[in-house]
Amino acid sequence: MGSHSNHPALELTRENVIAAHALVKPHIHYTPVQTNTTLSTLASTPQTPDALKGTPWEGQEPAKPNFKLFFKCENFQRIGAFKVRGAFHAVKRLIERTEGGLEEVRKKGIVTHSSGNHAQALALAGKTFSIPAHIVMPSISTPSKIAGTKSQGAIVHFSGSTSHEREAVVADVIKDTGATLVPPYDHVDIILGQGTMALETTSQVAELLSANAELGVHGESKKGLDAFIAPCGGGGMLAGNAVALHGTGIRVFGAEPSFEGADDARRGVEAGSRVTSVKTLTIADGLRTPLGVTNWKIISDPKYIAGLYAVTEQNIRDAMKLVLERMKCFVEPSAVVGLAVILFNEDFRRMVEKEGGSEGWNIGVVFSGGNTTVEAISKIFEVKTQEKAERAEGKVGEDGERVAENVAG
Amino acid sequence: MGSHSNHPALELTRENVIAAHALVKPHIHYTPVQTNTTLSTLASTPQTPDALKGTPWEGQEPAKPNFKLFFKCENFQRIGAFKVRGAFHAVKRLIERTEGGLEEVRKKGIVTHSSGNHAQALALAGKTFSIPAHIVMPSISTPSKIAGTKSQGAIVHFSGSTSHEREAVVADVIKDTGATLVPPYDHVDIILGQGTMALETTSQVAELLSANAELGVHGESKKGLDAFIAPCGGGGMLAGNAVALHGTGIRVFGAEPSFEGADDARRGVEAGSRVTSVKTLTIADGLRTPLGVTNWKIISDPKYIAGLYAVTEQNIRDAMKLVLERMKCFVEPSAVVGLAVILFNEDFRRMVEKEGGSEGWNIGVVFSGGNTTVEAISKIFEVKTQEKAERAEGKVGEDGERVAENVAG
Repeated sequence: MGSHSNHPALELTRENVIAAHALVKPHIHYTPVQTNTTLSTLASTPQTPDALKGTPWEGQEPAKPNFKLFFKCENFQRIGAFKVRGAFHAVKRLIERTEGGLEEVRKKGIVTHSSGNHAQALALAGKTFSIPAHIVMPSISTPSKIAGTKSQGAIVHFSGSTSHEREAVVADVIKDTGATLVPPYDHVDIILGQGTMALETTSQVAELLSANAELGVHGESKKGLDAFIAPCGGGGMLAGNAVALHGTGIRVFGAEPSFEGADDARRGVEAGSRVTSVKTLTIADGLRTPLGVTNWKIISDPKYIAGLYAVTEQNIRDAMKLVLERMKCFVEPSAVVGLAVILFNEDFRRMVEKEGGSEGWNIGVVFSGGNTTVEAISKIFEVKTQEKAERAEGKVGEDGERVAENVAG
Repeated sequence: MGSHSNHPALELTRENVIAAHALVKPHIHYTPVQTNTTLSTLASTPQTPDALKGTPWEGQEPAKPNFKLFFKCENFQRIGAFKVRGAFHAVKRLIERTEGGLEEVRKKGIVTHSSGNHAQALALAGKTFSIPAHIVMPSISTPSKIAGTKSQGAIVHFSGSTSHEREAVVADVIKDTGATLVPPYDHVDIILGQGTMALETTSQVAELLSANAELGVHGESKKGLDAFIAPCGGGGMLAGNAVALHGTGIRVFGAEPSFEGADDARRGVEAGSRVTSVKTLTIADGLRTPLGVTNWKIISDPKYIAGLYAVTEQNIRDAMKLVLERMKCFVEPSAVVGLAVILFNEDFRRMVEKEGGSEGWNIGVVFSGGNTTVEAISKIFEVKTQEKAERAEGKVGEDGERVAENVAG
């Protein structure tokens, strides 16, 4: 990426995630880890044979895994998503490495191309340190996103929508200002920053479990997490969490949408080479990006990632509806892809049945963000209503049924 | 109501709310009190003159009150609403008072007529103590509500939709089983139970403020709440909170929808006599009921209630959108009526400007529940889209504008 070029990049180690946490902690929320009996019970209830109709597992015996779910609620994070972790870490490292320090960084500024959560996060980091933040956004971005980014004090530059057009505008900004590029996900400082959420989660889960053990809550004999699952788009957050948990014995899994090939990480690992281009309109709009180069190295390495699993659009909608209506927690579609794998992907569920046995797994589940709108939700579930009509005519599967049957109330 | 007829009713005192809390605490969640900088800032920002167009305050100078908001999140309560507080309290008192105790109550059962949160709450209390819970519901209730109530182990009886028809079925159940009626809101035990949320809120706010004072957070010199605002439907919860806070110096306010006369408490107090019948289809569907007789005594007494304020349907939608999208907190429309008063009712805002001055008020704001669905939300905000079109043609006010202008991001 060419930034910070005079200094060697940090190594991707758990120690460096711990160091990143010390740097970002004053600037981020220590988001809660929440549990939910309904969702843990549902995850531990086999899907109905009907629910598997029309899926690759039709006619097979539904798996019987056991789970206790621990949700890391990054939808309550500043700017409504985990991206502030990486952004603050990258900016603080930039200040450290720049000759002349903060003063010099302030003169030149920072720049990124993004119309999403990373743009808001970098704008906030810029505002915090009084560093000009240049955000290159496609001119077709929704007005509310443009207004949101501007309201963080960022300088918005418009570009065309292709990555080529956006990069050209970024290059212009760098030429004009000397600003440093802080890319959204494919960068060591970003990866290390995002991984800080896994550190918090493990210590929060340990606290919860030991508090429950003291209270004598039935079955709370375990000491911590067995596994951790996170959504995977560009892969910075999944890679960061994998690095943070490397060597701890906690298995890390990635979750992707399957729609229109959005499961590029899973497909790439299967094929043995990175998928470099993805064109998908999955409702999980934070996960439409292919894996970054650095992230691929971590995510394709089985020493870091124990598996990658994909879910359908309907799985994502069903999981989102549960999180909204049962947990009363406002999340964006990308946020629930990990939970959707746990609830609906029979390959994953069988593996956990086999590996976790009757004791089951304590699993950390990342809710990555909550930046959506009631209008977007209406649109997402309008489609669902149409599909319901189709299901009534037997055209599609019945994933939603088990929800009503097993966990009403 | 004829229940517990051999015992004098408890008095409506703060001490009895404290006693109620000891009884219900093991059965309810200690729900969090949350703060939100965006919403406190917005509440402390004057509305724009444009936003007041088409309202009773058109052409007047917008008020400049200052607020710090503390949200009591009863949407995270068991069954998704505060109603478990009153239900558990009423059932535990019933057991205490019944000769033969729990065994005898188990023989006869409990009964109520409700299709909403109270039905679920009473069903849960029944299940907890293995007491048969008979729930009389209109046969036209939505299937998911019927299924939800049944899944709590309740015995559902169907009736017509009028209160006369429902009461006839309740009378039949009592005749057949000897069950005791636990009414939804107009009952001393219910009132005392609901009031427990105010006790928790005051101690949680004191904790938050003292933690902030220790951290040296700017401006945290105050010791607690100045005021408390809660939605008012049948009035059990508002009356309970008023009783709980009586004598503490904390002023208690009630909030109602104005649509189709749903502000019956406000109108009754203004006219000097209780409004006994209300027919409204306000989106705040938990607040469609007129005040109960016992609740009226408290709520119409200025020694308990400092004021009642009403808001429009659009105010409720705007407040709900903010809570969902900014706080990432899933609430039902009835839950946000107190916040809507704070944000949009100029009479209330002027009063706080005058009384609270530049230091402003710390105010506890009840989010009463979160039992809604994505489908219901779609419908609520569909209407909004229609109204936006009408507004563009100058037909209705512009309440929503200040939101986008002042607090984007």
